Amino acid sequence: MTTQELIQQIRAKKSFLCIGLDVDLTKIPQHLLECEDPIFEFNKSIIDATHDLCVSYKLNTAFYEAYGIKGWQSLQNTIAYINLKYPEIFTIADAKRGDIGNTSTMYAKAFLEDLNFDSVTVAPYMGKDSVEPFLAFENKHTILLVLTSNEGAFDFQTKNVEGKELYKTVIETSKTWKNNENLMYVVGATKADYFTEIRKLIPDSFLLVPGVGAQGGSLQDVCKFGMNDNVGLLINSSRGIIYASNGADFAQKARKEALKIQTEMNEILKFNN
Amino acid sequence: MTTQELIQQIRAKKSFLCIGLDVDLTKIPQHLLECEDPIFEFNKSIIDATHDLCVSYKLNTAFYEAYGIKGWQSLQNTIAYINLKYPEIFTIADAKRGDIGNTSTMYAKAFLEDLNFDSVTVAPYMGKDSVEPFLAFENKHTILLVLTSNEGAFDFQTKNVEGKELYKTVIETSKTWKNNENLMYVVGATKADYFTEIRKLIPDSFLLVPGVGAQGGSLQDVCKFGMNDNVGLLINSSRGIIYASNGADFAQKARKEALKIQTEMNEILKFNN
Repeated sequence: MTTQELIQQIRAKKSFLCIGLDVDLTKIPQHLLECEDPIFEFNKSIIDATHDLCVSYKLNTAFYEAYGIKGWQSLQNTIAYINLKYPEIFTIADAKRGDIGNTSTMYAKAFLEDLNFDSVTVAPYMGKDSVEPFLAFENKHTILLVLTSNEGAFDFQTKNVEGKELYKTVIETSKTWKNNENLMYVVGATKADYFTEIRKLIPDSFLLVPGVGAQGGSLQDVCKFGMNDNVGLLINSSRGIIYASNGADFAQKARKEALKIQTEMNEILKFNN
Repeated sequence: MTTQELIQQIRAKKSFLCIGLDVDLTKIPQHLLECEDPIFEFNKSIIDATHDLCVSYKLNTAFYEAYGIKGWQSLQNTIAYINLKYPEIFTIADAKRGDIGNTSTMYAKAFLEDLNFDSVTVAPYMGKDSVEPFLAFENKHTILLVLTSNEGAFDFQTKNVEGKELYKTVIETSKTWKNNENLMYVVGATKADYFTEIRKLIPDSFLLVPGVGAQGGSLQDVCKFGMNDNVGLLINSSRGIIYASNGADFAQKARKEALKIQTEMNEILKFNN
């Protein structure tokens, strides 16, 4: 998917919501456990109930790897379902990978080509040759961890590196990499104060923003400081939406929560062209 | 496995070799492709032919994920085979994971408990709460990326952070984390000059050292500057051993290459108590 297509979808749906499909078998409605692939059944219901309110689904690979081969089957089933039934949706493999060059190529091929996600999250610690293999895929996107939503972000990411914070060095360095136009960035909603500084460095890039809701970040603050003329934001919510209920009505309740956020986004977008 | 058991194994086998089982279907003997699980068949032969010459096997998850569900089946078969047949071997899931706390817990459980690896490699960028969930497992080890063997290591890892290089900040910070006695560290063999400095910070820790052989690092240099009284090194070699031949003799040729390294290690160990 091109960035332009993503922007068109945001304008059409009046939403820049990304729903995180982080499925934990202990939290889903118990009647689903009788299905052959409970995680996929759960995801399918959530997706069918919310696809018109969001523009993206994010699958954190940890939640699937936790169930071994069955989990990978659920991951494959879910991404295949989205690609087939809702091809307009921007899909994210939240894998946080990164390895030496030829090994990163294997991860990139697995997520962007074989599974056919539109994007994958990548950790920057190993530098240029660990990220560029992901950037080589046309109309695919590499979402680089920059300033994450957790407390540990302050251990290294905000440390001063030769006059500026490490996350800024990561952003600036990444702009010199080959095919850097395929980059997006992860910036946690819990760090809303930082968006102004980040926008000075990457005014046009899309930012994937976790941490709204359960982790305490504010949608209003993120939009105030992080939005650009093309919106430029994908706001992720996982638990707050998908676990709104664990009864038979879980999909309707998830829709209700997604609608709340989409309604708020619609209001915000009235002031954005 | 306890660190003491690893040291005993090193003394008994006169080896601190780790063999990387990074299996690429295009590089293995073609007759194996007829088997139901060619990657596992290949690994089994390599393992049976080399287990007395090495103390560790490292499985880079990228090479398995590249083949989807079949790859995960091969990964599961391989780790189960090693744990059953050669329980003295120290096993490494080279996964380079790291995520926010509860998500890191899912990765940790998957690799250290369900798959039952002795250790997993972890990326430090997201800080304390992304690593501590891995450290919580008793007699399991978390191998933290510190100074990697690739060129991109110079993008961020060696940058000056408040008076010292980032990799040193990572090491020092990691020593304050809960259960830090379960930490080991990845230091690339291509950076042998750095070992003296690293040993000042972590004299007693085990270092996993990739980059000897194909990537150009020298075993002699690494040992000269990186060895401690308990050896304290696991030297990884992948391609140089497992792809020594792609004929019917691949396992014997792999053994021959492993024996060359083990012989060199045996000589070095004569000067280490």
